[in-house]
Amino acid sequence: MGPHPAVAAIRLAVRRVLHDVLNELSRDTADSPPAGGPARTRADGPPLVLVACSGGADSMALASALAFEAPKLAVRAGGITIDHGLQTGSDLRAAEVASRLTALRLDPVEAVAVTVGRAGGPEAAARDARYAALDEAAERLGAAAVLLGHTRDDQAETVLLGLARGSGIRSLSGMAAVSGSAGRYRRPFLQLDRQTARKACLVQSLPVWDDPMNADPAYTRSRLRHEGLPALEKSLGKGVVEALARTAQLCRDDADALDTWAAEVDATVRDDAGLLECAKLYALPPAVRRRVLRRAAIAEGAPAGSLFARHVEELDRLITGWRGQGVINLPGRVVARRQGGRLVIRQG
Amino acid sequence: MGPHPAVAAIRLAVRRVLHDVLNELSRDTADSPPAGGPARTRADGPPLVLVACSGGADSMALASALAFEAPKLAVRAGGITIDHGLQTGSDLRAAEVASRLTALRLDPVEAVAVTVGRAGGPEAAARDARYAALDEAAERLGAAAVLLGHTRDDQAETVLLGLARGSGIRSLSGMAAVSGSAGRYRRPFLQLDRQTARKACLVQSLPVWDDPMNADPAYTRSRLRHEGLPALEKSLGKGVVEALARTAQLCRDDADALDTWAAEVDATVRDDAGLLECAKLYALPPAVRRRVLRRAAIAEGAPAGSLFARHVEELDRLITGWRGQGVINLPGRVVARRQGGRLVIRQG
Repeated sequence: MGPHPAVAAIRLAVRRVLHDVLNELSRDTADSPPAGGPARTRADGPPLVLVACSGGADSMALASALAFEAPKLAVRAGGITIDHGLQTGSDLRAAEVASRLTALRLDPVEAVAVTVGRAGGPEAAARDARYAALDEAAERLGAAAVLLGHTRDDQAETVLLGLARGSGIRSLSGMAAVSGSAGRYRRPFLQLDRQTARKACLVQSLPVWDDPMNADPAYTRSRLRHEGLPALEKSLGKGVVEALARTAQLCRDDADALDTWAAEVDATVRDDAGLLECAKLYALPPAVRRRVLRRAAIAEGAPAGSLFARHVEELDRLITGWRGQGVINLPGRVVARRQGGRLVIRQG
Repeated sequence: MGPHPAVAAIRLAVRRVLHDVLNELSRDTADSPPAGGPARTRADGPPLVLVACSGGADSMALASALAFEAPKLAVRAGGITIDHGLQTGSDLRAAEVASRLTALRLDPVEAVAVTVGRAGGPEAAARDARYAALDEAAERLGAAAVLLGHTRDDQAETVLLGLARGSGIRSLSGMAAVSGSAGRYRRPFLQLDRQTARKACLVQSLPVWDDPMNADPAYTRSRLRHEGLPALEKSLGKGVVEALARTAQLCRDDADALDTWAAEVDATVRDDAGLLECAKLYALPPAVRRRVLRRAAIAEGAPAGSLFARHVEELDRLITGWRGQGVINLPGRVVARRQGGRLVIRQG
């Protein structure tokens, strides 16, 4: 008798990702080493794959599947748990998660304490601190990859959070299956639902810890998880989570294609001095023109994260709604003006 | 003292659209008449603009604004109300709405009875019947445009309905400000919220009729309006409707640009016999390749409305995941196979 379907599902998902990582490693080894790129593995010994584990059901399921699959592929499996220091006793909690990872025979296992700042709000600050610590651990331990337990449900929530920003398809494209420097981060469960991960923990008798932050209505994602998304499912039907996840993938591909187009067209809409020519910009499809403008502002130092759709729209009106507007101020002290049929974007 | 801000807002929105319509009419007249295109206006007399009015707050507000603005621009203003025949007494209701339109000094005013079929579900069937009747009335009366009362809230609901389909950015792009044959349909209120329309009726003492279908939880849109969207706003904050509407516009532009790209690239990925070459398709960005495949299936007779993302994905796997798959059956009895490095799509 094979494993429970939920256990089979989580293992298959991890196996596929491990195969991908191994294939890429052997390709990297065959090629000359990438100039300046980060090392994907230490020269000696079998490759190491880490799991980032909060102790919750998703990442405990992930850890268990990694522990099961890695030895079969001659991969070393390790685990990292982050102590965000946001609740009393979080250090003890992290130590307990680490001991659970060790019990799964992961090695090395580390509990890493971080200091969460305030930039961008509590969720963003915690995320920034977490990824910085994971990056550091992956570098130090020479890990080939770090697995993250995000599920299809997390993806659906991320798409809705992006939707609320109203800033276009890049923010609708959710989390990537592969991300980070040299594709370090992998999300094997991105097409698996949370219920499967939870079930896999249950049938494997894995203790899981429900982070009270996940149920705290002070957090947008928590409200979305427990109120917004269920209400949306009630209105629109049970397929909403799947539809949102599929939307993410389609939007990601669309956004990539349009970014490529904008990058390719960039040189063709500039004069000999490298200035953007308004007449040529005008002739572009609006979706491409806005991306060219966005790129140009970022190239001059506007921080991507602070450059909103409304900024780009204001820039665009210099092209499509020209009526002698003055200088436009963009984030990062970048200024834009139209001058002699050219768009001049500079540090102010 | 000027009009109440809500009344000023609805009038401004209508005035802008009337200006657009008049500008386009004078351009059409200056140009040679479009070959085979529908007549936009009768040769004699001032142009006629119709409002489609259910008697609800949105379209009554629209009718009142049209009645106010049209005479100032030498435009004739008329109104159509549709009797869907779905409720007892709907004929009396339609007659009452028509009399309210006449009281606003619209002329001509018609109440048109339609027979709603069953195709595509109750909401789609009612919509199809309604637009057929509006098309017929517009043709017969020689209307230059038909104004529709859809608000930003309707747009937000439409985006969420599209999201639930999970079929990509075209279904996220909601309703167009200008649509239909020769841009017949105009939606002046697409950037105005429902509350403004309602307020404008109130301060103008316009009687409005709340269609019980709008509150009937048997309808998806009604559930979304009264439960799904409010819950989403509670989770994500008050800006959700605006964000959804902005998303619609961005997605529309993106979808248009990618469709253009796919159309342009089409000829370059075919061999001398006009067959799609798999190697050339493979080299395209996924977002563009999928649109080329979708176009090809539709060109061979697959009905656009029945061709879902999963069909296109299956086609795409003939290119990106070739492992000797057999014939793929698509809607409209269209079949696709890979043969000698070519993708052959034909009526089966």
